[in-house]
Amino acid sequence: MEHAKTVELRGHLIDQGVFARVMDDVLEYSGAYTIDRFDVGRHHTDESYVQLTVSAETPEQVERIIMRLQTHGANPLDPGIAVLKPAPRDGVFPEDFYSTTNFDTQIRLNGNWMDVENSEMDCGIIVTEDRSSAKTLPVSDVKEGELVVCGGEGVKVLPLPEPERKSPESSNFEFMSGGVSSERPQALQVRQIAERMREVKARGEKILWVGGPAIVHTGAGKALEALINEGYADVVFAGNALAAHDIESNLFGTSLGVDLDKGHGVPHGHEHHIRAINKIRTCGSIAEAVEQGVLKGGIMHALVKNKKDFVLVGSVRDDGPLPDVYTDVIEGQRAMRAALPGVGFAIMVATMLHSIATGNILPAKVPLVSVDINPATVTKLADRGSAQAIGVITDIGLFCEQLAGELVVGYKRD
Amino acid sequence: MEHAKTVELRGHLIDQGVFARVMDDVLEYSGAYTIDRFDVGRHHTDESYVQLTVSAETPEQVERIIMRLQTHGANPLDPGIAVLKPAPRDGVFPEDFYSTTNFDTQIRLNGNWMDVENSEMDCGIIVTEDRSSAKTLPVSDVKEGELVVCGGEGVKVLPLPEPERKSPESSNFEFMSGGVSSERPQALQVRQIAERMREVKARGEKILWVGGPAIVHTGAGKALEALINEGYADVVFAGNALAAHDIESNLFGTSLGVDLDKGHGVPHGHEHHIRAINKIRTCGSIAEAVEQGVLKGGIMHALVKNKKDFVLVGSVRDDGPLPDVYTDVIEGQRAMRAALPGVGFAIMVATMLHSIATGNILPAKVPLVSVDINPATVTKLADRGSAQAIGVITDIGLFCEQLAGELVVGYKRD
Amino acid sequence: MEHAKTVELRGHLIDQGVFARVMDDVLEYSGAYTIDRFDVGRHHTDESYVQLTVSAETPEQVERIIMRLQTHGANPLDPGIAVLKPAPRDGVFPEDFYSTTNFDTQIRLNGNWMDVENSEMDCGIIVTEDRSSAKTLPVSDVKEGELVVCGGEGVKVLPLPEPERKSPESSNFEFMSGGVSSERPQALQVRQIAERMREVKARGEKILWVGGPAIVHTGAGKALEALINEGYADVVFAGNALAAHDIESNLFGTSLGVDLDKGHGVPHGHEHHIRAINKIRTCGSIAEAVEQGVLKGGIMHALVKNKKDFVLVGSVRDDGPLPDVYTDVIEGQRAMRAALPGVGFAIMVATMLHSIATGNILPAKVPLVSVDINPATVTKLADRGSAQAIGVITDIGLFCEQLAGELVVGYKRD
Amino acid sequence: MEHAKTVELRGHLIDQGVFARVMDDVLEYSGAYTIDRFDVGRHHTDESYVQLTVSAETPEQVERIIMRLQTHGANPLDPGIAVLKPAPRDGVFPEDFYSTTNFDTQIRLNGNWMDVENSEMDCGIIVTEDRSSAKTLPVSDVKEGELVVCGGEGVKVLPLPEPERKSPESSNFEFMSGGVSSERPQALQVRQIAERMREVKARGEKILWVGGPAIVHTGAGKALEALINEGYADVVFAGNALAAHDIESNLFGTSLGVDLDKGHGVPHGHEHHIRAINKIRTCGSIAEAVEQGVLKGGIMHALVKNKKDFVLVGSVRDDGPLPDVYTDVIEGQRAMRAALPGVGFAIMVATMLHSIATGNILPAKVPLVSVDINPATVTKLADRGSAQAIGVITDIGLFCEQLAGELVVGYKRD
Repeated sequence: MEHAKTVELRGHLIDQGVFARVMDDVLEYSGAYTIDRFDVGRHHTDESYVQLTVSAETPEQVERIIMRLQTHGANPLDPGIAVLKPAPRDGVFPEDFYSTTNFDTQIRLNGNWMDVENSEMDCGIIVTEDRSSAKTLPVSDVKEGELVVCGGEGVKVLPLPEPERKSPESSNFEFMSGGVSSERPQALQVRQIAERMREVKARGEKILWVGGPAIVHTGAGKALEALINEGYADVVFAGNALAAHDIESNLFGTSLGVDLDKGHGVPHGHEHHIRAINKIRTCGSIAEAVEQGVLKGGIMHALVKNKKDFVLVGSVRDDGPLPDVYTDVIEGQRAMRAALPGVGFAIMVATMLHSIATGNILPAKVPLVSVDINPATVTKLADRGSAQAIGVITDIGLFCEQLAGELVVGYKRD
Repeated sequence: MEHAKTVELRGHLIDQGVFARVMDDVLEYSGAYTIDRFDVGRHHTDESYVQLTVSAETPEQVERIIMRLQTHGANPLDPGIAVLKPAPRDGVFPEDFYSTTNFDTQIRLNGNWMDVENSEMDCGIIVTEDRSSAKTLPVSDVKEGELVVCGGEGVKVLPLPEPERKSPESSNFEFMSGGVSSERPQALQVRQIAERMREVKARGEKILWVGGPAIVHTGAGKALEALINEGYADVVFAGNALAAHDIESNLFGTSLGVDLDKGHGVPHGHEHHIRAINKIRTCGSIAEAVEQGVLKGGIMHALVKNKKDFVLVGSVRDDGPLPDVYTDVIEGQRAMRAALPGVGFAIMVATMLHSIATGNILPAKVPLVSVDINPATVTKLADRGSAQAIGVITDIGLFCEQLAGELVVGYKRD
Repeated sequence: MEHAKTVELRGHLIDQGVFARVMDDVLEYSGAYTIDRFDVGRHHTDESYVQLTVSAETPEQVERIIMRLQTHGANPLDPGIAVLKPAPRDGVFPEDFYSTTNFDTQIRLNGNWMDVENSEMDCGIIVTEDRSSAKTLPVSDVKEGELVVCGGEGVKVLPLPEPERKSPESSNFEFMSGGVSSERPQALQVRQIAERMREVKARGEKILWVGGPAIVHTGAGKALEALINEGYADVVFAGNALAAHDIESNLFGTSLGVDLDKGHGVPHGHEHHIRAINKIRTCGSIAEAVEQGVLKGGIMHALVKNKKDFVLVGSVRDDGPLPDVYTDVIEGQRAMRAALPGVGFAIMVATMLHSIATGNILPAKVPLVSVDINPATVTKLADRGSAQAIGVITDIGLFCEQLAGELVVGYKRD
Repeated sequence: MEHAKTVELRGHLIDQGVFARVMDDVLEYSGAYTIDRFDVGRHHTDESYVQLTVSAETPEQVERIIMRLQTHGANPLDPGIAVLKPAPRDGVFPEDFYSTTNFDTQIRLNGNWMDVENSEMDCGIIVTEDRSSAKTLPVSDVKEGELVVCGGEGVKVLPLPEPERKSPESSNFEFMSGGVSSERPQALQVRQIAERMREVKARGEKILWVGGPAIVHTGAGKALEALINEGYADVVFAGNALAAHDIESNLFGTSLGVDLDKGHGVPHGHEHHIRAINKIRTCGSIAEAVEQGVLKGGIMHALVKNKKDFVLVGSVRDDGPLPDVYTDVIEGQRAMRAALPGVGFAIMVATMLHSIATGNILPAKVPLVSVDINPATVTKLADRGSAQAIGVITDIGLFCEQLAGELVVGYKRD
């Protein structure tokens, strides 16, 4: 262990488990540590301060450990200067490019720290030729010759602002982060999510919904429509299926062959689905279908009428698809990124694919709630490192119904 | 295939799939058939009539096939006379005893058919010494020397009355039987179940609830309490856990360490659980705890106050248990059987163990709804041959909340 | 019910449940029927013959019912002549286009029936200008002016050849179609699937694998690699994730941060993932990475080395992606269709997205097995109308391990 | 916060997260703390030492917090003397009885600490009249007048011995404790469990199996039989169902109507089940059925032949039951407790009910593995505070097959 570097960190290091994770990671990465200084906070409102020296076999290993510890808010006493290398080809990063987290990040090119725009994980950091600004960029978008930050020198990851200290009086919302389970007081959870949405709206931030077609199959389309009309959905990310089933159920009163008002199958269900898509293709787009009076209700209609953004990105299993759907997934990701500014809260309902896609591009600081009857979806999202992810395992149909009941005055299914 | 016997059956044999199952079963049991006569109904309201001869290698095989076909309503042209043999020992049936289904059954001792009391599956049929009456009996309850029907001769299984013919105008309730899925219009399902409960109550029949502790964990205890007070639960079957968590949450405001009003953990959760049980043991029983003013709210309190029946049967995982719990499961089953008369509808919520136990003793003619977030529970119940089983895969907390909203005027969680 | 039409059907109509479904569908579609003739087969090897007249309120309704009944093999006594209309625009069908099933289909333009090429569901049927041939086409691929079959006149759907008659001696494979359950004799199922694969290979047909990244996460990559080398995978459909995790685990020995040989996490897991993708982007393609000696093992390496086809189609959640990935999903679908000829068996493992995508384009006559630990995936595939779908709910890792053990002589994990 | 008490703790307090949990719990219990002293270990092999003063509104609250912190190994500087009160009635503890954890515990009656026999959670601690020994006792077994420890004074909970320090070289087994997931390298997990079983056997400790009927349904009975014969199962806890289905499949070749060798249904499945039970009731017991040559193979046969202990405890859903089944669940629990001494490893397969029952009575120091295809079972067990619980979500049939392949030389299914 001949190579070493000293880092410092400050904060609620013990009761938040931060320092335990730091020590854990050093060993996980085959390093060693010496605690040089530990000033413990005497009471639970006091911060602690730690200085520790990390050592490993090679300088590269030390550097990787440091990069890792940065995600916990540990920063080198001597931060160094960012190394820049040109991208060797369009769509290719230099081999040792710095791979981003979804936390706010800064780089240091000379004496000063500069913010990196657009926190997004698994990207590179691109610096303008005049070195006046830096931003994250996915590998597919880099151009040959653009300057890419390489190695971990001169990069600082800013930890999330601490959640309010835990106390019997503090917000009850946090508890949901303690793992996921279907055995929770669900009516209470709905109310807490409603409360959070009201706060977000009051702050003037946008609410992003990411949804799957089960919203329509479970009869929750009317609830979501009401929430859109009431202003509780500013941006919607979805696939072809949500929009197509929503439109099908409004053109034909069915979704995948289930008559939503009566609950039983109707003639030639699948056929309705592809006919609905063909109809909108005839109109030209969903907005034109609304304008032409073809589409008169439902989720998509409400989005068009309320001039809300939606981004529909296609998938390999799509029929049609609808004319509004991005069939190129990389273009779809770009459109999703473009719709993120201003989003202060994300709710993801009944879609693993689009939830993970959104989790990939969402900054860690945006709180998100994932709602699904399938625990795997909810767990997977949390595993992707979305620090603010909260999972609710419940029934989509009843969840949306009750959320609308909480947020929309006079909401009552007919 | 030297041995043969002819059976006849009448009804909506094709569109209900009955005849397909008959033919299927003959082959499944290694037999063969010849269709002697087939009078097909010309329109969908007409009945059909079939006579077919079943053959197999041995007379025993023929007899087993006939026994099987009886469950579809096929009866031998020549029904025969029931064979009676004495039980060789307490708790033991003769080797070739007739094993019952949960359909209504008749036996023929001389010229006339006699009803068998208490349809219950996997039992024997016991005939009184004077041969004046017959009833089902589980093997554990038979006494040495009691007369037991053996073989399938002289036994007739009555098929369920046909559900209303399928038509666009008929009740929508049926559709749920078409498999189980979480992707259903759930709010609609709740309303249909509520409607069915109103009908059952209007007919003066009892509603049986079978429930697991998740009712309490998901915060649905208040909804169930309201439903009991409103008369929508006449009998409750459960285990120690439902009652203990309900009582715990009412004595201490917690269930398994979750503060139900705030949603977060409270001091020493598990301890509360066993303390609640000890408290009721100190009082002597749940009813005495209510009388002594110790227990002032919750599901069990509502049952006591409204003088409703409840049967709590223990399981090997129980703490305590509460003094009202049957620790002997066979005695528990007897108590459950004793509470069944008058039950016209059964709803099973969040418990695989007690749901299957109830499914075992419930006559096939009692409609039952199984509600669980876990598809396996719902599917398993259907697989046990409960012909009237309807499965709803949804969230327990929200389900009970909405059911109370439908059935209890002015119901609103505080 | 003033409008009517007579259809006939022949086959094992009762024991296969075909006729029950026919009657069911007529009522479901708000029609009525009269059975004009019913010649029942006397023994279970005899076919039956039915003639029935379907009536409904409008001629359109009658036509829709007939279209529906065709999927059961019922054909009009008077089949009519197919109506052709030109596509009004690129990517748009005429409003009343005939929407295909995935069964073999024929159309009748004048006196003779002509095969429709490429059975695929939810498509239109396009006829060449000289009316010499017809093929299915997805709506996105139709060009303005192309002739599209409209309405159900002159269209005949050929039912699947009947499976071998059910008998105690017949193949055991069928049983799996009887619903899905994790409670099956799994080791036996694996052996039956292996047996089926040997038969397919012996017939010179191709085996299609559709796989998700869990194959790599569960350590099953080596088993699949061995199966590819042994010739049990001719075509692979997957997404960016399977390929990227496979390549990552071969370049870095990890998959999503799990060290596959030791089973515990390694430094900066996610980073490895995006670095692996960047590495292949640097090489230009997976094949070039193999050629340059960069990629030396794993699933993708085995596919390249054995010159097997693979189609990777992107999704909105992709990182990178790998240079071989179709980022346009419609182009990806086209590439998948192009790889289907010759496929005689499809096995879908651990991917709902690509399984459904494949189910959408696969003719109904190709048998498919869906393997997943999540019952929802398996059920959903069956619900999409894939008539030959067989579901196995089991663990992917152990499944592939045992399949390789059955099919690859001397297979033993090191 | 006028009442206070000082505790000390020593060990790897930070990297194991112990101290974070201590601080967390103080706040959770509405207390406050002051860190009086904190000597941090400089390297990861050094222990730390903390002294902190806990304060709360009332002395009772302080006491409860202290009781809670004891589970983390924190002990009061001044431990106090245990308070003893007589049980007020048979089966009832004094109101403020000390409720046990499943950790090793000591009490102090005068100057010295005395071990409490039989660590088991949710029990009371009973002291002999001469105060020479102490043991845990479930509430149902206490007799009026027996001395019961009340309050937390004079009680010390001993933390588990620390697992080996985490390092790249250490045992890989631990990793599984990091949450449960079906996306793990499963073949590897099986091998690690096999390795652990060999170690346990080599130490002369017993292996406890807790199993559900799915072992038989999934065709894993033969694998378990082989493991019993090879000495890898010393004690089996199960219910009526496992034994009955095992016996049914050996008497009739079926389990719940599934022919296990062919995989398809056989005549009158359910009937076989109850006939098998009646047969054993005729014999008198399972052992007598083996002796009389009636039962010639299977799990239960292997247990009898190898003179291994088994405890079958009934449940309310049982048919029959078999004569060996404890129908009284409290007696069943006693029989299970009596079979625990010497058990050094527990494996729980496909049974939530018996797994939790066993988890309730098992000391925390016995490592346990829970195997189920249903994540809920595995998660629930971990939630019950079983500190050594490891969850494997996989297919039971393939799991047992591969485990037998690892442990039984020449094991090969015929």
